[in-house]
Amino acid sequence: MRNLTEHNVTEAVLQTLDKIQDARFKEIMTSLVKYLHTFVREVELTEAEWLAAIQFLTATGQMCNESRQEFILLSDTLGVSVLVDAINHRKVEGATVSTVLGPFYREGAAEVPPLHNIAGDTPGEPVVVFGQVTTPEGQPIPGALLDIWQASAQGFYDVQDTNQPEMNLRGKLRTDEAGRYIFRTIKPSSYPIPYDGPVGKMLNVMDRHPYRPAHIHFIVSAEGYQPVVTHIFVEGDPYLDSDAVFGVKDALIADFVRHDSPEEAAKYDISAPFYTVEYNFGLQPV
Amino acid sequence: MRNLTEHNVTEAVLQTLDKIQDARFKEIMTSLVKYLHTFVREVELTEAEWLAAIQFLTATGQMCNESRQEFILLSDTLGVSVLVDAINHRKVEGATVSTVLGPFYREGAAEVPPLHNIAGDTPGEPVVVFGQVTTPEGQPIPGALLDIWQASAQGFYDVQDTNQPEMNLRGKLRTDEAGRYIFRTIKPSSYPIPYDGPVGKMLNVMDRHPYRPAHIHFIVSAEGYQPVVTHIFVEGDPYLDSDAVFGVKDALIADFVRHDSPEEAAKYDISAPFYTVEYNFGLQPV
Repeated sequence: MRNLTEHNVTEAVLQTLDKIQDARFKEIMTSLVKYLHTFVREVELTEAEWLAAIQFLTATGQMCNESRQEFILLSDTLGVSVLVDAINHRKVEGATVSTVLGPFYREGAAEVPPLHNIAGDTPGEPVVVFGQVTTPEGQPIPGALLDIWQASAQGFYDVQDTNQPEMNLRGKLRTDEAGRYIFRTIKPSSYPIPYDGPVGKMLNVMDRHPYRPAHIHFIVSAEGYQPVVTHIFVEGDPYLDSDAVFGVKDALIADFVRHDSPEEAAKYDISAPFYTVEYNFGLQPV
Repeated sequence: MRNLTEHNVTEAVLQTLDKIQDARFKEIMTSLVKYLHTFVREVELTEAEWLAAIQFLTATGQMCNESRQEFILLSDTLGVSVLVDAINHRKVEGATVSTVLGPFYREGAAEVPPLHNIAGDTPGEPVVVFGQVTTPEGQPIPGALLDIWQASAQGFYDVQDTNQPEMNLRGKLRTDEAGRYIFRTIKPSSYPIPYDGPVGKMLNVMDRHPYRPAHIHFIVSAEGYQPVVTHIFVEGDPYLDSDAVFGVKDALIADFVRHDSPEEAAKYDISAPFYTVEYNFGLQPV
C-alpha cells in the first residue's frame, strides 16, 4: 500500500475494507468509497474546492444543536431523504405513501382525546381534521395511533419559537372502533426551512428558494401494520411544485374546505371562518 | 416536481441544479448528487443507517475546533485527500511527488537560519536534515523556501500538546546560492492520528489501526515553480505499508543514518548518537 496514484488509490482503500467483520457495514463503506472517489475523479476536484467542502461540512456539523439538524436539511435539500424514504417504503395499492420525516419530529407528544385542539391558543385559522385509518382494502383499523406535528401559521415549530409553549402543535390521537379520528388545529402555512446556515447559503448559490408547501406531519401506526411517516399538504399552496425537500405527492394533497357559517363553527367550539379536511390513511400489514 | 419515487427523484433534483449560474459549481453539484443517489440506491440504505450517517457527520463536525479537523481526518482515512492530491499534482520526472497536507499545518512559522534546531528543548534523538532543491533537470534553485513541521518523539504536534511551546517543531528555511538547505530537529516517530472522535471509532469498526509512519512535513516553494506539499518518511518504520491516510511513496522514504561519534556530533552542537538525513527536492516549473 505505497505509491498510490489517482489510478490505484481507490483499489488500495477498498482493500483495507476487506477486513471489516460486519458484512453490511463493509458493503456500505465499499460502495461509499467507490462513488466518493468516482465523484472526485470525475470533477477533478481542486484542492481549494476540497477545502471548501471540508469547511462546508464542518460548518454544517457545528450548526447542529438540540433544536437544529443541519445535516438532515442537507440530506433533504439534495433529495437524499426522499430517496431513502422511497426505497424503504415501497407501498402496496391502497396504502398511504410516505414522505420525509424532516428535522422537527419530537418524541413524547401527549395522547389527546378526539376533537382536542393541538394548537391551544396559538393564533391562526381554525381547522378540523378528520378521517379514517383502514387497511389497503378499506377495513377500519381501531386503536391506530396518529402522532401529529406541524408548524404555526407563521411557519415555526415549537422548538424554533420561544412564543410557543413546550410541545405545542403536537399530539397523539387514537382511532375509535370505526377507525375514525378527529382533531382540531390551525391552518399550517408554507414556510422556509431554516436558511441562516450552510444549507441556506447553498440553496442561495443554487438560486433555489427554501420554502416548503404548507403541511401537517403524521406518523400513523397500528399493531400488525407498517407505520407510515407522511404529511397532508394543503391544496392550492404555491410551493407544491417546488418543495425545497422534494416531498410532495399528489395523493397527500388534501382540500382544506372553507366554512363561513358561525353555527357550523359553534359545533366544534371554534369561530368562523374555519376549514375542514378529510383525509383517510391506509396502513399496509407488516 | 411531485410524486417523486426512487426511480425519478434523482432526475428531479438534477433539474433544480440547472439554474445554477456558476458552471463549475453546477458541474460539481451535478456529479455529487448523481453519485450520492447512486450510492444510496446501490446499498438500499435503511432509515436507521441514514440516521447513523447523519449522527456520524454531525459528531464529526462537532469534534472540530481550532486545533482539530475531524473532516480532514475522515477525508484522509477514506483516501480522498491523497486522491485529490494526486489529481492536482501530476508531476514530471525529477520533480518531488506530493502527499497529503494533513490537518496540522499552521501558517506563520518563523524563518530560521541554516542549522537552526526547530525542536528547541524538545526531548528526542537529534537529527540533521540536509539536501538540495533543484529543477527536475538538477539545476540548483537558490532562495527556495522550505516550510517544515513535524510531531514530537511522542507523536504530538504542538497544537496537541500543552508541554510544547507555541509553534514548536515548525520553521521556514531558505536554500543558499547552491540550492542547499540544512537544519536540525529530532527524529519523528510513528503516531496515531487522533482517534478519540468519530473517525477513530470508524477505523476501530473497520479493524484498521490509526497509525502513520514517522515523517517530517515540507512545503517547498520557489518563484516560478509549483510548490510541493510532501513528507520525508523514515526508512524502516513499521507502518510504511499501512499508513492510515495512504500517503507513503517510495520516493519519499529516506535513510535516517545513525552516527555514534561524539566528535561528529560536536560539529553540529548536538550529542551522539544522532542521525543524518539527506533529501533532495525537485521543483517543477509553473
